[in-house]
Amino acid sequence: MEIKAKFWIENKGEVVLGGGKTALLLAVDRLGTIQSAADQFGMSYRHAWGMIKKIEQRAGFKLVDTKLGGKEGGGAQLTPRGREFIKKTDSLLRDLQVAVEKRFRDKFQKDSLR
Amino acid sequence: MEIKAKFWIENKGEVVLGGGKTALLLAVDRLGTIQSAADQFGMSYRHAWGMIKKIEQRAGFKLVDTKLGGKEGGGAQLTPRGREFIKKTDSLLRDLQVAVEKRFRDKFQKDSLR
Repeated sequence: MEIKAKFWIENKGEVVLGGGKTALLLAVDRLGTIQSAADQFGMSYRHAWGMIKKIEQRAGFKLVDTKLGGKEGGGAQLTPRGREFIKKTDSLLRDLQVAVEKRFRDKFQKDSLR
Repeated sequence: MEIKAKFWIENKGEVVLGGGKTALLLAVDRLGTIQSAADQFGMSYRHAWGMIKKIEQRAGFKLVDTKLGGKEGGGAQLTPRGREFIKKTDSLLRDLQVAVEKRFRDKFQKDSLR
């Protein structure tokens, strides 16, 4: 047997993001455009853009800065606050996954799981 | 902001149970019949019975013993192994919830969350 876990962050009862959206935002920062990040996740630019706007709306602060060139072609990067938030969230979600698996193993000794 | 988490246990890629089914099985043990436990969760006897059978099938061992009186009226209780598994799972899921919230608070200092 194994334990599975899903984590997400809410603000005022609304989902801000979980692992998937965190990965999208990290990709925006790494690749420099929303379009490239969207491509990597097999989603349209419009869908990715909408996700980012919803994350910002629910988080209550701006996470992505788009540069001149317009939303279709211009570059994008995380704001300093957005980057700090996303890096912390990504690190937290990874740590939690490891911690959850460790606690499961500690609780259920191998012999009791067969 | 706050963190939310969902946990469940799988065996060979199939979901065995999460918090809801664990609570149902604890209720069976506490109330002494599948019917009473089903009532408490607003589900039919048949649905609860089917859930239990699926949990047993996927876990690979018997969790509930039904006593004479037949499945409609007879008593039910957890097997020793089922009880140990369910109590451990319940305790683990509660501990994980607390641990996840603590790690979230430790990672995100109050001031960075506003």
